[in-house]
Amino acid sequence: MVQNPNLDRIRNATLRERIVTADEAALLIRDGMTVGMSGFTRAGEAKAVPMALAARAKTEPLKITLMTGASLGNDLDKTLTEAHVLARRIPFQSDPALRRAINHGEVMFIDQHLSETVEMLRTRQLPAVDVAVIEAVAITESGGIVPTTSVGNSASFAILAEKVIVEINLNQPAALEGLHDIYIPTYRPNRLPIPVVTPESRVGLPFIPVPPEKIAAIVVTEKLDSSATILEPDHHTRAIARHLGDFLLHEVKMGRLDHSLQPLQAGIGTIANAVLHGFLDTPFHNLKMYSEVLQDSTFDLFDSGKLIFASGSSITLSAGKYQEILPRLAEYKPRLILRPQEISNHPEVVRRLGLICINTALEFDIYGNVNSTHVMGSHMMNGIGGSGDFARNAYLSVFVTKSEAKGGLISSVVPMVSHVDHTEHDVDILVTEVGLADLRGLAPRERAKTIIANCVHPEWRPALQDYFERACARGGHTPHVLEEALSWHARLRETGRMG
Amino acid sequence: MVQNPNLDRIRNATLRERIVTADEAALLIRDGMTVGMSGFTRAGEAKAVPMALAARAKTEPLKITLMTGASLGNDLDKTLTEAHVLARRIPFQSDPALRRAINHGEVMFIDQHLSETVEMLRTRQLPAVDVAVIEAVAITESGGIVPTTSVGNSASFAILAEKVIVEINLNQPAALEGLHDIYIPTYRPNRLPIPVVTPESRVGLPFIPVPPEKIAAIVVTEKLDSSATILEPDHHTRAIARHLGDFLLHEVKMGRLDHSLQPLQAGIGTIANAVLHGFLDTPFHNLKMYSEVLQDSTFDLFDSGKLIFASGSSITLSAGKYQEILPRLAEYKPRLILRPQEISNHPEVVRRLGLICINTALEFDIYGNVNSTHVMGSHMMNGIGGSGDFARNAYLSVFVTKSEAKGGLISSVVPMVSHVDHTEHDVDILVTEVGLADLRGLAPRERAKTIIANCVHPEWRPALQDYFERACARGGHTPHVLEEALSWHARLRETGRMG
Repeated sequence: MVQNPNLDRIRNATLRERIVTADEAALLIRDGMTVGMSGFTRAGEAKAVPMALAARAKTEPLKITLMTGASLGNDLDKTLTEAHVLARRIPFQSDPALRRAINHGEVMFIDQHLSETVEMLRTRQLPAVDVAVIEAVAITESGGIVPTTSVGNSASFAILAEKVIVEINLNQPAALEGLHDIYIPTYRPNRLPIPVVTPESRVGLPFIPVPPEKIAAIVVTEKLDSSATILEPDHHTRAIARHLGDFLLHEVKMGRLDHSLQPLQAGIGTIANAVLHGFLDTPFHNLKMYSEVLQDSTFDLFDSGKLIFASGSSITLSAGKYQEILPRLAEYKPRLILRPQEISNHPEVVRRLGLICINTALEFDIYGNVNSTHVMGSHMMNGIGGSGDFARNAYLSVFVTKSEAKGGLISSVVPMVSHVDHTEHDVDILVTEVGLADLRGLAPRERAKTIIANCVHPEWRPALQDYFERACARGGHTPHVLEEALSWHARLRETGRMG
Repeated sequence: MVQNPNLDRIRNATLRERIVTADEAALLIRDGMTVGMSGFTRAGEAKAVPMALAARAKTEPLKITLMTGASLGNDLDKTLTEAHVLARRIPFQSDPALRRAINHGEVMFIDQHLSETVEMLRTRQLPAVDVAVIEAVAITESGGIVPTTSVGNSASFAILAEKVIVEINLNQPAALEGLHDIYIPTYRPNRLPIPVVTPESRVGLPFIPVPPEKIAAIVVTEKLDSSATILEPDHHTRAIARHLGDFLLHEVKMGRLDHSLQPLQAGIGTIANAVLHGFLDTPFHNLKMYSEVLQDSTFDLFDSGKLIFASGSSITLSAGKYQEILPRLAEYKPRLILRPQEISNHPEVVRRLGLICINTALEFDIYGNVNSTHVMGSHMMNGIGGSGDFARNAYLSVFVTKSEAKGGLISSVVPMVSHVDHTEHDVDILVTEVGLADLRGLAPRERAKTIIANCVHPEWRPALQDYFERACARGGHTPHVLEEALSWHARLRETGRMG
């Protein structure tokens, strides 16, 4: 395989001489380095070099700072964690083994808004990237790197790194070429507006421009992306989708939206995916997406004719969908763009386009503050991801969750969230299977009434109502009984149930 | 006075016929209406009509929703509160009487990011403005309204309102004309980039364009803006300024900044003003500001030759400075722009220009979450204002506060903030008189160590260190002892001291 790369895949003849094994390429990465790898929501990650690093760490000291786009597939974060390669990890992860190491304080995890990592790298406010490792479908004649199923932070990693390792993945379809739109904001203080004015705007190059001499090694691979584990919609997620659909229809009726709505963003995961699926059963049409991850639902909406365009930073599909869509990618290509996550999530563009943003909450409180990341205020789940980039600048910021977790031991609505990722200012609409709370233009005491009435599971409603009333008796704009505010979480820790 | 308006001030002859008394104009405002008034950080607020409303409320039922730019001067919020005119108040205030009413649940206060109010109005996600009341220095031939010492939300209020009342203030200097740059973003989905690319960019009109027929009444006034109550720098605020100056010099030495830094933003108030004053004693030069409020320090920096341009949404000065600067405004005019707060605070522009943002914290916690608004988690002080607009998108987000409050009864650094306005993701640098914590690229456990070592008053350091160690023993990415996390606040409430 290493001796027979497809000539179409490496079109710069000089670069073909730099093909090496993964082990050889990995030698460019030394103990203490900062490494920027491709990969966003389990799509398009470098697959061979990180495995070689993990193997090497068995025989020599090797600790690195690993930056990626977002989460990695193929158990890479697990393997790297178990090999003790990770000293620092930036800006997102979703792996149970890595999560455990983070929560034990063994790996320093820097959880960032996904649009911000490369901005901080560019201004040298994060350690410089020594080596970038980027999965590609091809390298152009001029040395341009054509990413695979995600762009993530790959472009800036490659441009800013000292050296670049390219993993040419022969099993990523060649049809991916032409899908990407690589635009990098100009340096401040002379930065110009980002020219994206619709989800369809193409403003950059179809490859990552890198001087060929910076490409220090090329590794040829064949491993596929991991598939997403998306659960089927259940009656709760269907109810959430229905509440949101009804609300949006009401907005159309009020003349605030038309049937093509505003461009949609939806976070990764089962609930957001189910909500998007819910659009199949609505009268909305000519929809567009401007999101970070394009999931199964994106393609189902294309196939139904509801969706006319989708822009994202990655394509992450379930096993079945992956087999179905990837070979037919050329059909979808005119309606798809993959962008750097800095652009897919950029506050400037999100605000300009006026997105309807649907993200998942771990818990929210009676005033509408949202915890997206920390179990019991202390333990990291995955990271804030793009939820802050989108929620802050949305036309309509929607958070969804089931009203209870762990079979009823936990209420997802609490007196005070144990960790705040999104403040009440950035949360317009909350939806659980119980109902929807429209918080726009409401003061905190009004928000509490609406949330308790509409989103809370009946089991927990009296206790929350009681807390709220006793808090109001004490007074305040956002009334709390401080010594009780986190008692639901403390009780859960002690007794295994919130109340 | 009403009979002799200066003809230069109302240059549209037809409109001169609409001059009425404040009482007459106020009759356009009826019970239940939504009113948008000029005024931002006690500058340029409508002065006569609100007083007439308060007087009328003594004899008839009169409750309104009042939207402004930000806080009002001339005790207007106090007078309106005491007259029970305010049902709802949006998006900022800083008046003790109104604050009391808000905390008693008598006035519904909708605390918003200052860039967002008119965005929500434009999309009809807030109740429509029935009447706008705008202070002006002049009305042009075409009916254009020339604002006074602030722009705030005046432009969008006037453009979106059913009817407009203009207060021509003869004591606001005519030289203000030409200072303003009124740019309103185009409607989505066809919005174009906001063309501001430097603090100096002029991209709009020098007046608010309104069809003359919409100007329903004109009132002539003479009352001055209230002066700001800025305390003199003390040894604590000087120490804060020195720590920040030293840090920025270090950034220059590291090659991340040059001596003209990046454009500066500073929040309103004594500490931020003192920090800006501190720049007088630094080697920085050719500085620019892109801020919301221009205070005394802006003009001192101009006079010292350090500052070459300042863009804001208002000019708010102390009594002495006001007397000195307003008559000499023409001298400063080529170096000044006043913009709508939507533009001065716009995420798109803030991120593009790469601002160094200096805002004041009420308290922050060992992980760097900031509370800007709520005393003891429940009681509103003023509102989030522009701090979120700036901190989220800053090149460098700095929060400053003294390490203790109430003569040492309160530590400004706590285990967990009792209310979150800015999450750890949006806070790069924390400064107290004790020292500075540089949090960039650090994980929460590392942030805690740096904050405890550098920012905490020695009196409280052992207790915070003890909390942190016990929290770490329990584990987690952001370790907490949940049942103790807010105990410092609870103790303060019970005993009058945090520990």
